[in-house]
Formats: sequence, structure tokens, C-alpha cells
Amino acid sequence: MHYKYDKIGVMLKNKDKTYIPEGFLLSAGEAAIKKPGKKDIALIYSMTEANIAGAFTTNMVKAAPVRLDIEKIKSGKGQAIIVNSGNANACTGRKGMKDVAETASLMAKSLKINPSLVYVCSTGVIGTPMPMEKIEAIIPVLTANLGRASLCDIASAIMTTDTFPKAISKKVKIKSRTGTISGICKGAGMIAPNMATMLCFIMTDIAVEKRTLSRALKDSVKKSFNRITIDGDMSTNDTAMIMSNGALGNSEIKENSASYKIFKNALDEVTYELSRLIIKDGEGATKSIATEVNGAADEKEAEKAAFSVANSSLVKTAIYGNDANWGRIMAALGYSGIKFNEENVSIHLGNIKVVNKGTGTGKDAEANNYLRNNSEVSILINLNKGSASAKVLTCDLTEEYIRVNAEYRT
Amino acid sequence: MHYKYDKIGVMLKNKDKTYIPEGFLLSAGEAAIKKPGKKDIALIYSMTEANIAGAFTTNMVKAAPVRLDIEKIKSGKGQAIIVNSGNANACTGRKGMKDVAETASLMAKSLKINPSLVYVCSTGVIGTPMPMEKIEAIIPVLTANLGRASLCDIASAIMTTDTFPKAISKKVKIKSRTGTISGICKGAGMIAPNMATMLCFIMTDIAVEKRTLSRALKDSVKKSFNRITIDGDMSTNDTAMIMSNGALGNSEIKENSASYKIFKNALDEVTYELSRLIIKDGEGATKSIATEVNGAADEKEAEKAAFSVANSSLVKTAIYGNDANWGRIMAALGYSGIKFNEENVSIHLGNIKVVNKGTGTGKDAEANNYLRNNSEVSILINLNKGSASAKVLTCDLTEEYIRVNAEYRT
Repeated sequence: MHYKYDKIGVMLKNKDKTYIPEGFLLSAGEAAIKKPGKKDIALIYSMTEANIAGAFTTNMVKAAPVRLDIEKIKSGKGQAIIVNSGNANACTGRKGMKDVAETASLMAKSLKINPSLVYVCSTGVIGTPMPMEKIEAIIPVLTANLGRASLCDIASAIMTTDTFPKAISKKVKIKSRTGTISGICKGAGMIAPNMATMLCFIMTDIAVEKRTLSRALKDSVKKSFNRITIDGDMSTNDTAMIMSNGALGNSEIKENSASYKIFKNALDEVTYELSRLIIKDGEGATKSIATEVNGAADEKEAEKAAFSVANSSLVKTAIYGNDANWGRIMAALGYSGIKFNEENVSIHLGNIKVVNKGTGTGKDAEANNYLRNNSEVSILINLNKGSASAKVLTCDLTEEYIRVNAEYRT
Repeated sequence: MHYKYDKIGVMLKNKDKTYIPEGFLLSAGEAAIKKPGKKDIALIYSMTEANIAGAFTTNMVKAAPVRLDIEKIKSGKGQAIIVNSGNANACTGRKGMKDVAETASLMAKSLKINPSLVYVCSTGVIGTPMPMEKIEAIIPVLTANLGRASLCDIASAIMTTDTFPKAISKKVKIKSRTGTISGICKGAGMIAPNMATMLCFIMTDIAVEKRTLSRALKDSVKKSFNRITIDGDMSTNDTAMIMSNGALGNSEIKENSASYKIFKNALDEVTYELSRLIIKDGEGATKSIATEVNGAADEKEAEKAAFSVANSSLVKTAIYGNDANWGRIMAALGYSGIKFNEENVSIHLGNIKVVNKGTGTGKDAEANNYLRNNSEVSILINLNKGSASAKVLTCDLTEEYIRVNAEYRT
């Protein structure tokens, strides 16, 4: 097979240029799983067999594609990922498992590669059988169109309630060569600790040894996708995958090397930026909220406290209403399950200290103004107990969230 | 002191008659803590020293009155409870503690009883110092008006965002005599496991031994107030108290007696009914949702699963939208932290089986109709694993919840 290789830089809302890493070809199509007129399926293809790693939902209820991918990825090898939106293929029983295996097999046949190298991902409504005749019909189209889609095109094709496509690229110098790490993702609702209804696909032309790749991804996900929350719900389908095809020609990066550090830093930037875009696009959100807890005994405690505040409906609605109601932050800290002395707690909203030693400083009006004038706000909490900290990203809770989710299937 | 004793039966929305048990006098007043024109303070007084028991918030951040009451109630004795709305006296530091002690002391002086017998409860905004001059001014008024308020009057005085007062009475035959158990409560928002921003006061003229009273209350609260959730938030102030003054003249009820069983059953009915009223009045709620999990390995597991579903914003918005989106119920079960096999799960909405063996039955349209036509809906889940079960009450999540909570302090 021969494909014309396109390197397309697309402009995103956030004005970042994105590049497809060397040796990857993309394709997007309309399988009519979603309403007509919308792209709903994408193919990510590496021209050579690649190293691959993944992180998957910890939900006990796992979609059929997730179950398949978890098994396959043990090999550490992959070459293609087919992703559809509109149907999650979750809670679909044996038929779901059969359908996902067939999808991988049909895709492999069309690409003339081994089915073990093809991964399948899905997002959308739970409990509806996958329309296999539509999948079967679109597969040859996806293959034929390889190389004609940009990162943005495939990011658009996998959207559900997202309002904009999410893609990011990072150039990285590894010794004398400049490689690329690019990622796309989808998010919107049902985002919670441990990567909920979140799909993320990262491609790189930098050669990374397969166990090192897996370690890097898992560690990176922990501080990015696993530290965002929109509504506390966690999905059956979330998946983050990374493919490294080595098209850059560098010698395989191994852990604890100087190159690993450089690669890992760039990967962390990519996953963090993608997380930030997911929060920015939280269903109905008008504000992003960074909740940072400092002075905790350990990181786990800091994370627990930060998530408790970030998941509080009362905190989120107060921020939406530009109301510096720090009592709700104190209450959410109090029921987080961690131990602390309320007399030692201080809270800042932006630069304004609203709580000192557990009681109000009388600067609520000033803090209300801060909330009114900023769409990215920060809640900074100090437990004054130890030296560990954690930051969790979330968004406010609005009437629009209710509308989007009350009418999702109608 | 002499008070005219009033026994007032008031009609509630739910058409139940309520009676003040023998030997109790009630009073309500306007301290102007809330906006003028609204009653915001109440006094519950027993004409004789009573046995008293309490259950309090498990939030690490505890309001000043809660801290005081937890200490006092160790004696098992009490005679008066003064309750204000509009100000929670939480996160108010040392001043808060001083204020609550002073309130108890002033109230005791006015009633000419020992300060150790006076309990103080507060609900409202966190972090604002208590306006003590207003409390001081209203205390003699409360004393002077004792006997002039009904259960409904005091239930009204302690409301915050509640839209109706909540009171209930139960007549109980103990041997040859008929006693009364009456309770009032407030709820609305910030209701979560372990009794959040919930105040509940139960009075009875039936004599119950003090340790027995405490055991009965705690057990009763576990299956009522601790099994309701509105938004998953838990407050700094929640308190449930029961006073037993023995005015009925029965011999003190002790555990494991026949009379205990009768008393406990009636108490359970009172606490369950009050919980139901709280859910009915959830902020912005249009529907009550009973989530029952059956077939769990043990009760703790059943409770965990039921709370996970009841707290899911996505489930709550789907019910609001009359959308039988059972996939969200499956997802919430999946991230609840319990272990189960999704292929064994069945789900009913009302009488309609929407999930069998983990997959859809195709009855979504029928289930949508069920949701559309009912304001009290049930989600019945069977894990088909063991024989334990638990039921949690909640309500749907609506645009109105957002409005109420975004504008609470404005």
C-alpha cells in the first residue's frame, strides 16, 4: 500500500499549531451513527508497526472495546486505532464483544495488517447495539481516505457533547533530531477522577521502548486526566493511548536516560494541556476552576481534599454565581474524609485571602469582584499541616449543564 | 413559672395532623437574623427536665453550637433547645464558641433553669459572626411566648431554602396509655450521607431510659436521615435530637422490652417520614427518586451502590428529563467502588424492567412514559449476588437547583 503523506498544521481556537508526527496517517468519516451531516468515525494509522501503551477506565462496568483493548495492549504493539462517537458499545453483552472483535478484524483486513495490531474505541450512548452494517460500510472509506484528515478533523469526529475539537502538538529535540508529540482528545461531561468518558490519543514519531512508553503514559495521566472532574461521574469507556512509531530514527528511549526526561516533560505538557481543554469545554461551563490544596500530610490527602472541593455542587454553583461563599469550601474540606484542624486553614480566591485561621477575613466583596472578572479562577487552600500538595481542575455548574444532560438522548 | 399549655393540631400539606406531646411548650420569634418579616428563631421547652439524645454531623468542620451540644449531651439530660436560622455560626472561631455559650446561658437565665440543660442549634450562612445583640433581645420574647406556637410554627422558623415546613406526629399506645412522638425538621440543600444541613427535633411524652433513647435515635437516623442525599454535600451543622420528658407517666422504656419495639417502630416512621419530606423539598426538585439496591453481598455494599447512583448528576438530570437512560445507572454502579458482574445486573424503573443481565430490554420508551407520569419514581437495582439491600432517597437535579445555589447569599 502507498499513501501520500500529509503534514498538516491546523489552527485551533487556542492558536496552537498542530502537526501530525512523521509516519502517521489520519482519516475521518461519516458512518451515520450520529445524526446525518456529522463526522462520527476516525482512523489513526501508523505506516509501520508501533509501540503502544494505554490507560483505561477503572469503572467495574467496562465497554466492549475497552475490554478488548486491555487484552490486546499487553503485547505493547499496535498500528491502527479506529474510534467512533455516537455509540459507546457499553452494556451490550456478548453481541457487543462480538461486534468489537469484528470491527477490528474488518479494519485489519482493509488495512492489510494483523488484527492484533488494530484497537477499537467508542464513545456515546450506553446500551444500544452498535450498527455493524454502518461500521462495515465505512471501513473501506476510512482506509481510502487515509492521509486526508488533520488532527483537528479526527478530534472533531470523536466529539459527543464537546463544543470544540481538542488537539495539541509539541516539538521535542531528542539529541540532534526534532520529533513531535501530538494528541487529540474528547471530554465534556461525565469527567471524573480516573478518566471518565474521556478518549485521548497521542502519537509520536520519537522511538520509545515499550515498557518505558507505558510507564510514561501512566505517570502522565495520573497528574492530568486523573486530576480533572466535571460532574464526579466516571464512564465505562475512557481510554488514553499513545503510539510511538520511531519514524524520527532516534535510538529507542529507555527510562532514567536524559532523553527520557525531555520526552516525559513534553508528554506531560501535552496531557496537561489536553486536560485543560476538556475542563474549558465542560458541559455548560462558564468558568474553569483550579483547586489547589497545599500543606497536606501527603499527596494522597491533598488530592482527596482537592477533589472534595472540586466535586461540590454547592462550591461550583457559588463560583458560577460569582459568590465568594468560602463556607461551602470549608464544608467540602470537612467532609472530604481527611483529618485537619479547621483553625489552621487558610483559603485564597485568586490573590485574595478570604479565610485566615479558619475564619473569614471580611474580604468577600473583593473576592466576589475577582470571580466576576475572571473566567479562569483559582481556589488555593492551605491546611498548614504538612508540605504535600495537589491541584485538581474543574468547572462551574450551570443551568446549561442540566439542559445538556436532561436532553442528551432526545 | 406558669404557662398555659396548648395542644394544637395543625394541618400540613400532606394532610397529617400534628400534636405537641404532653409537657412541651413551643415558641417562635423574629430575631431579624434573616430578612425582616420572617420568623427565624424557635424554642422547644419541656416543662420538666427530660432525657435527651443526639446525632451530629461527621464533618471535620463543626459549627460552634454542634461542638457545644456534643459536650453537653453526654449528660443525657436537657430541658430546652433554642434554634435559629439565617446564620450557621460555623467557621466563626473563638468568638463563635463564646457566642453559643452565652446564648445558652442567657436562655437558661430567662427560663430559670440550669444552663447545662439548654442546647443551641443554628443553620444558615457559614462564616458570619452571630449578631448577639439580636439574640439577646429575642430571648425574653421567646420565653414570654412559650405555648403560643405550633409544631408547624417552629418548623417554619428554622427553614432556610425550604419551601414548606416539615412536621409529623405519631400516636403510640404504650401498655394502657397513648403517648405522642412528634418531630420537625428542615433540609433543602446540602443534604448528604450522614445528615447534612439538616436539623431535626423530636419530642415525646413517652418515658424512655436515656441510654435506650440514644440507641434508638442513632439506629433510626441510620436508616432515614443517613440514607437521603440531595447534592452529595454535607454540612457543618446537622443535628438530630430527641427529648423524652415522661409526661405520659409510663414506666421508663428499656431496651429489648416489648414497649421498646413499639416505641422504636413509631420513631422509625417519624424519622423516615421527615426524611421523605426533606427529599420532596430538595432544592429545585421536581421528582423524588427512591434508589433501592438488592442482591448485594452485605448492607454496606448495597448502601454504597445506592448512594453512588443517587448522587450521580447524570442520573439525576436524566430523571429530570424523563429519559430512561439506564446506561448512566450502570455507569454509576460501576464506579461505586463495589465489585459485581455487570452480566448479572437487572434494573427496573417502577415496574418496567429496563435492564436484564446487564443489557437493555428495549423498553426505554415505556420507561420514559413512566418517568413522565410520576413525580415519585423508583430505581430498583438487583446485583444478583447476595441477599442484602438498602434504599436511598434523593431528588432530581434541575436548573432551579443551580439558580437557588448560585444566588443563595445575594
